[in-house]
Amino acid sequence: MRKRMEAMVREVQSEIRAAVERLEGRTLLRDEWVRQEGGGGVSCLLQDGRIFEKAGINVSVVYGNLGLEAARSMGGGRGTDDPRFFATGLSVVLHPRNPMAPTAHCNYRYFERGEEGSPVAWWFGGGSDLTPAYLFEEDARHFHRTLKVACDRHDLAFHPKFKAWCDEYFFLPHRGERRGVGGIFFDDLRDRDPETLFAFVSDCARAFVPSYLPLVERRMDSPFTAGQKRWQALRRGRYVEFNLLYDRGTLFGLRTAGRVESILMSLPLEARWEYAHEPARGTDEASLLEILKAPRDWA
Amino acid sequence: MRKRMEAMVREVQSEIRAAVERLEGRTLLRDEWVRQEGGGGVSCLLQDGRIFEKAGINVSVVYGNLGLEAARSMGGGRGTDDPRFFATGLSVVLHPRNPMAPTAHCNYRYFERGEEGSPVAWWFGGGSDLTPAYLFEEDARHFHRTLKVACDRHDLAFHPKFKAWCDEYFFLPHRGERRGVGGIFFDDLRDRDPETLFAFVSDCARAFVPSYLPLVERRMDSPFTAGQKRWQALRRGRYVEFNLLYDRGTLFGLRTAGRVESILMSLPLEARWEYAHEPARGTDEASLLEILKAPRDWA
Repeated sequence: MRKRMEAMVREVQSEIRAAVERLEGRTLLRDEWVRQEGGGGVSCLLQDGRIFEKAGINVSVVYGNLGLEAARSMGGGRGTDDPRFFATGLSVVLHPRNPMAPTAHCNYRYFERGEEGSPVAWWFGGGSDLTPAYLFEEDARHFHRTLKVACDRHDLAFHPKFKAWCDEYFFLPHRGERRGVGGIFFDDLRDRDPETLFAFVSDCARAFVPSYLPLVERRMDSPFTAGQKRWQALRRGRYVEFNLLYDRGTLFGLRTAGRVESILMSLPLEARWEYAHEPARGTDEASLLEILKAPRDWA
Repeated sequence: MRKRMEAMVREVQSEIRAAVERLEGRTLLRDEWVRQEGGGGVSCLLQDGRIFEKAGINVSVVYGNLGLEAARSMGGGRGTDDPRFFATGLSVVLHPRNPMAPTAHCNYRYFERGEEGSPVAWWFGGGSDLTPAYLFEEDARHFHRTLKVACDRHDLAFHPKFKAWCDEYFFLPHRGERRGVGGIFFDDLRDRDPETLFAFVSDCARAFVPSYLPLVERRMDSPFTAGQKRWQALRRGRYVEFNLLYDRGTLFGLRTAGRVESILMSLPLEARWEYAHEPARGTDEASLLEILKAPRDWA
């Protein structure tokens, strides 16, 4: 499973990279890195592009021994004191330049604890979510429906469960709002045989390009004002708040001395904080906030 | 002590506000707020000013009952399970527009646990630190020396101790660098009688204007390039990282449902994240990083 998951995330990385390069009309930077304690990864990056202000498409395969505290905070149920771990995953964040085009994120990962071949624990995690600065309902519907199709192929119970989990996870309690319009999220998935779950996770990962890239194509040349660009930067400030205050992967990565540049690749090129900013009633900005406070069923 | 500390922080707030208004040539926004569970505060604010991109000068006086977890995480030694608390403090963050002018922060606070008049625990905390994007050694020296004079009036052991504590506190372990060139920092201060410590803390708070405002005056009209402005935004990204990942006051405030706008007032108007940004060797940017990795004795 270690090898198959690794092969799958590398394949999807290439696919997403090719889609981004096609839109952008240029080659992404490819940064291969080695983890001193075991493993490494490949980050594909774009900064200050024509379509994307920042794009990061990262694959990592890391293994070795964890400290006891990190081991215990890693999850996975049984065997949590075993220091040996293996983790492989795909992590993608795309921040388009045009404020009408939404940001998207996906992350699919597989963990093992213990020895290769006879793990004491294993599980899958992942998900994908959409963060618009301006909401186009048809975009949110397309994104959610594409994910729903991928989920439904495996279990009709998956989509409602993982959609709700996503709304719960990407939540900023201090703001009382979600970071975006959601998608799917799951963690510690190990309630069926690994084959079944691997097939499900692979389908979700492959759904990223068709769920998201058409939205960028549709919006990337929309006209926009300086004020709309400023609102996008404010929303990106909230994205930063979520990732640095609450995102488990980010915090776990930083605490266990993961590769900082790959972990913080998710942060936008530019973000903004204004004191007590509140959009005027009845504006597009205000209606986005309403949806972030009360998530809808988009699929 | 509750009333005297409150009076002191309000007085210093007026002083800092007047100094900022004089430089800026306009009146700051004054936002008075009430905390539903007890107390409130006054935030004085400026955004997108001529000299300051963002300025926040906040006083709060809050009291009531804490949940058990919050009470335990509050510190203060004895009586930490008593839910009753009182806290008053001054919190200042000034982010100048010109990248040659440093950002500065100060925060002085007094806490009590238990009943007014017969607290089961009390303590002072605080400090002040300087965050340049471009380092002028004479500026760092002036800032540190002014604080040292304030410390030395009370105990010659204070300055070396609190300077070292500051370097330790404002540290981003994942970057291996400090957020700036330091200043002073202390917490849980209750090893002498309250009068002595109040006099010390008051002197430190009053040292803020003379330690910092002359630096802004000296640098605010310096010429700068777009590249230098971009470097300032990158450094402000690190400022955001520190505050959201590590700053105890920020995390405690957000976890205990403090007033979000006053807590996050410290964040800059604009911040930037570039993948694996590294300044070229021998540049001003690189020499700043060296100092952030190996703090100096500036006083």
